[in-house]
Amino acid sequence: MAKAMMLPVLLSFLLLPFSSMALTQDFCVADLSCSDTPAGYPCKASVGAGDFSYHGLAAAGNTSNIIKAAVTPAFVGQFPGVNGLGISAARLDIAVGGVVPFHTHPAASELLFVTQGTVAAGFISSSSNTVFTKTLYAGDIMVFPQGLLHYQYNAGQSTAVALVAFSGPNPGLQITDYALFANNLPSAIVEKVTFLDDAQVKKLKSVLGGSG
Amino acid sequence: MAKAMMLPVLLSFLLLPFSSMALTQDFCVADLSCSDTPAGYPCKASVGAGDFSYHGLAAAGNTSNIIKAAVTPAFVGQFPGVNGLGISAARLDIAVGGVVPFHTHPAASELLFVTQGTVAAGFISSSSNTVFTKTLYAGDIMVFPQGLLHYQYNAGQSTAVALVAFSGPNPGLQITDYALFANNLPSAIVEKVTFLDDAQVKKLKSVLGGSG
Amino acid sequence: MAKAMMLPVLLSFLLLPFSSMALTQDFCVADLSCSDTPAGYPCKASVGAGDFSYHGLAAAGNTSNIIKAAVTPAFVGQFPGVNGLGISAARLDIAVGGVVPFHTHPAASELLFVTQGTVAAGFISSSSNTVFTKTLYAGDIMVFPQGLLHYQYNAGQSTAVALVAFSGPNPGLQITDYALFANNLPSAIVEKVTFLDDAQVKKLKSVLGGSG
Amino acid sequence: MAKAMMLPVLLSFLLLPFSSMALTQDFCVADLSCSDTPAGYPCKASVGAGDFSYHGLAAAGNTSNIIKAAVTPAFVGQFPGVNGLGISAARLDIAVGGVVPFHTHPAASELLFVTQGTVAAGFISSSSNTVFTKTLYAGDIMVFPQGLLHYQYNAGQSTAVALVAFSGPNPGLQITDYALFANNLPSAIVEKVTFLDDAQVKKLKSVLGGSG
Amino acid sequence: MAKAMMLPVLLSFLLLPFSSMALTQDFCVADLSCSDTPAGYPCKASVGAGDFSYHGLAAAGNTSNIIKAAVTPAFVGQFPGVNGLGISAARLDIAVGGVVPFHTHPAASELLFVTQGTVAAGFISSSSNTVFTKTLYAGDIMVFPQGLLHYQYNAGQSTAVALVAFSGPNPGLQITDYALFANNLPSAIVEKVTFLDDAQVKKLKSVLGGSG
Amino acid sequence: MAKAMMLPVLLSFLLLPFSSMALTQDFCVADLSCSDTPAGYPCKASVGAGDFSYHGLAAAGNTSNIIKAAVTPAFVGQFPGVNGLGISAARLDIAVGGVVPFHTHPAASELLFVTQGTVAAGFISSSSNTVFTKTLYAGDIMVFPQGLLHYQYNAGQSTAVALVAFSGPNPGLQITDYALFANNLPSAIVEKVTFLDDAQVKKLKSVLGGSG
Repeated sequence: MAKAMMLPVLLSFLLLPFSSMALTQDFCVADLSCSDTPAGYPCKASVGAGDFSYHGLAAAGNTSNIIKAAVTPAFVGQFPGVNGLGISAARLDIAVGGVVPFHTHPAASELLFVTQGTVAAGFISSSSNTVFTKTLYAGDIMVFPQGLLHYQYNAGQSTAVALVAFSGPNPGLQITDYALFANNLPSAIVEKVTFLDDAQVKKLKSVLGGSG
Repeated sequence: MAKAMMLPVLLSFLLLPFSSMALTQDFCVADLSCSDTPAGYPCKASVGAGDFSYHGLAAAGNTSNIIKAAVTPAFVGQFPGVNGLGISAARLDIAVGGVVPFHTHPAASELLFVTQGTVAAGFISSSSNTVFTKTLYAGDIMVFPQGLLHYQYNAGQSTAVALVAFSGPNPGLQITDYALFANNLPSAIVEKVTFLDDAQVKKLKSVLGGSG
Repeated sequence: MAKAMMLPVLLSFLLLPFSSMALTQDFCVADLSCSDTPAGYPCKASVGAGDFSYHGLAAAGNTSNIIKAAVTPAFVGQFPGVNGLGISAARLDIAVGGVVPFHTHPAASELLFVTQGTVAAGFISSSSNTVFTKTLYAGDIMVFPQGLLHYQYNAGQSTAVALVAFSGPNPGLQITDYALFANNLPSAIVEKVTFLDDAQVKKLKSVLGGSG
Repeated sequence: MAKAMMLPVLLSFLLLPFSSMALTQDFCVADLSCSDTPAGYPCKASVGAGDFSYHGLAAAGNTSNIIKAAVTPAFVGQFPGVNGLGISAARLDIAVGGVVPFHTHPAASELLFVTQGTVAAGFISSSSNTVFTKTLYAGDIMVFPQGLLHYQYNAGQSTAVALVAFSGPNPGLQITDYALFANNLPSAIVEKVTFLDDAQVKKLKSVLGGSG
Repeated sequence: MAKAMMLPVLLSFLLLPFSSMALTQDFCVADLSCSDTPAGYPCKASVGAGDFSYHGLAAAGNTSNIIKAAVTPAFVGQFPGVNGLGISAARLDIAVGGVVPFHTHPAASELLFVTQGTVAAGFISSSSNTVFTKTLYAGDIMVFPQGLLHYQYNAGQSTAVALVAFSGPNPGLQITDYALFANNLPSAIVEKVTFLDDAQVKKLKSVLGGSG
Repeated sequence: MAKAMMLPVLLSFLLLPFSSMALTQDFCVADLSCSDTPAGYPCKASVGAGDFSYHGLAAAGNTSNIIKAAVTPAFVGQFPGVNGLGISAARLDIAVGGVVPFHTHPAASELLFVTQGTVAAGFISSSSNTVFTKTLYAGDIMVFPQGLLHYQYNAGQSTAVALVAFSGPNPGLQITDYALFANNLPSAIVEKVTFLDDAQVKKLKSVLGGSG
């Protein structure tokens, strides 16, 4: 009928003025071959559904290591679809006795969702060094404000698994032990700026592969 | 006199330390030949006054179509001077009986200024589905918060014209009918996620050029 | 020894100049008894570890309803600890045959993590009405850019569960069907701005509790 | 039929978990009786359609003054509905021979749309003092980047009218002449920091109501 | 003459439409008696020149302590004038042999300007634990990106003084040693999440006033 | 022992999943050879400690000029390390009798720290043309809100020196006199939009190198 016949006119009309709107930025999948910018990577020219999903968190990380834990990131470097969207994720596997050592995310707040097992977690406020700790069970969530020192460890009798979401596509991860001991910052300086004993510093430098 | 003679010294002096300040970012006219970024396009190297003005909203859009309305955008794709400035515009022409169907702007709030005629407009809140409607006359303005469904139609006896400003250079425009019916999303899925009847979905898919 | 004896002096010294820094904003747990602001709620005066964790997503939502699905939010209104942190969460339970109908989040991008079952999901771009769909299995994640129409439904033979994270503490949720039919916007206007048939509109208005 | 009967169940179910979501911040109409914050005013508790529209720009401003021009603002102070939305507006009426003197908006970029007459406009870049000028006719738009000195004057033979949109709800307006001469900053200081002659400063101070 | 006589008309005219613009937010001096918000404190109602200047950094901090250093903040808590302005400051005094231990600012980047003496400074990147160190002399500046561990110590033969500026009004200060040892987080947990030896942890806990 | 032997396993494990995290954006030193973007320059690929420090503010600027003052910037153009960090700096030298004329920074607030001498400073609010002035001595700080007209001059008997920090990496600097008189904006227009007398305008245009 008349309505049906006229609607194609609308279609061609409405689409025409927007032909240059392929430019509209509904999203901006990262083109990792370009230089990053302060707001994220330049946008990939051609995208498909595969750019918006990621399979890399489906498998458990390998916890056969000293911390008995694994952090598997889905940051912009692994999952370019989050570029510009203000969010990213990671998977946390913690075997019995496992621990994610004290660390910070310089560029995002974290929301942890326990999917399996029991996790003890805590963070320290900067203003008063107050400790906020909580034992979390499957289904519980906890937030860790941006830039504050925090830890998680398995507080149960079976493997713990958690999904972690971040308030930015590239949160960063600074594990205090690695920052202090896994590089060539001279032991004398480390001791000076941490008050740690020389033997302690040298022991951990040796263990974590640092020099100096 | 002395003051006048000394000032050129100031001139050359003051300008010298800032010779590298041709880098200062007073503005950032889009270089549309580059890839977009989450914060907008890279800046065009050489600009003139013409980059900051735009003539494309001067003429009425063609309303000889089924919705009897035309939206003429001055987003960053059409008017690169707005890049990075947090603002853009569009012109709205609505013939008698014309309508701008339900739509959202995913990336900006909208401020509508009626320049001619009478416009009935409304938006729906997300929290309670509350309807906020208003009949607007020449000179009236109305705001539509970012991301909320809204519509406008001609509520008078003569052509209505409005200028629309957006709180971002690339607001996007998602017309619900086109999102639902003008693509190849299978009818069965559309029906499943909209509760619309099969006949209704197929009718509009056919009319709007969708398939499946 | 000397070092140990002198350190308490450091302690008292270092803490003194920061005594007024109880003001430092490491976090800002929402005081929901105050008026909201464009940047979030005013901060609660006294906080504890309980303010940063939330138990409300631990239990499955009730899917004994027509959509056979439940969305359980942990937005700032339910979980005040996310205030100002740029993140929030929700739990999604979808029974066999269940569906989360087309909707948008006006104020955040979404990252979905399937913890159980199979979820079919899709979103529509605003610029070209392109459909991006994906079938997701346990462990898969998918992002839905801010403000774009998207849906999820159970595509498997058992209950599906997902954790959803948002890039803001108050993402909003606008379900298209409810926005169109679950209020008092007159049918004649709904039809005018959606092109839906009168019978279809009245049927859904009746079903969803709308009037007019 | 079954579908229709079951949907009310959905309704009550879906609305229940969101009953506390009256908190969702779709918008934040300013409560001007509260103190402002760096992100805008606290939100008004109860709002209606009238909060989102404004009639104050419908009438021409009075141009029977020395500049033969009038700026009528619809900033958050006049139009609380723009609070938190990143946009505001103003109306500009310029009689024949009228001028809007050099000024800046410290907190927003400006987009000017000429609705009637002819406007000559210009702005000065900060990096090189380059002048960007344009003569604008009805329908033309021009942008003025945040914080840069700019002016508009009537360049035609009839009254000029423009709608001005800003990229923020509270753009500010600093007219250079008023900042320099319409207060009690001592003439000696004004001269020292502007290089203007004493006679010129005192003349304009007297004229504009300044003292000192 | 005529011009002078007419200008007062302009004055009264121009000021009138802006009478309600006492609302314009040129600045927002913190009212510390109110609750903070995620964007900063509500604005103080009445301000004077004294609200925009601060004398507290003029005197040297007391470095007669174990670290032989003093950090004197001019954050929003001490200097309410910086509220909402995206900047704050601190003064750093480091006696010979003094040190500012490893710390982070969760909410701002830091720019350090040495005004006197010699400062050795360094920070650690999060992605690769790379150390960036520099010896700075009077007049040198160095930046420390937001959230990354950094330190400063006196590398000269006389007292060192530096002005520190931050990219936010409330940068926070988390000194790693205090976060780890100056609270009641049980030693067993500290050891678990830091790999430090029990003796080391207990020694520093005792020294820094921690318990547990 | 066992612990030490196992930790290298942790090291290799922990580092592996982050091998692609050389992408993590801890910082983004500007690659000035690329086009700027609205959020700053693209990041330089390879950086060292030298990229984060700057020596250019160590030497006094040359104040042998008419204003007897020098502004030496350390903006992103001079100091690429501040790119994306929300901060930058400048050095201000003001000889006896020297002055930094009325100016604005369109893109940042300013925090001034007097390191030597006496500085008289002031700024003008936009809403009411209120003057906020202060005489500052060594150690005093003062803030100048973004975009507002302000000045500084030497109010003592010896050279004054100040460090200036800005809340952005590229604050811009618009000196009102240069914007008005140091270009080719025709005198007739300058007079029209400033109310300055023709003789005054022509005098300063001649002095400051303007034409027209």
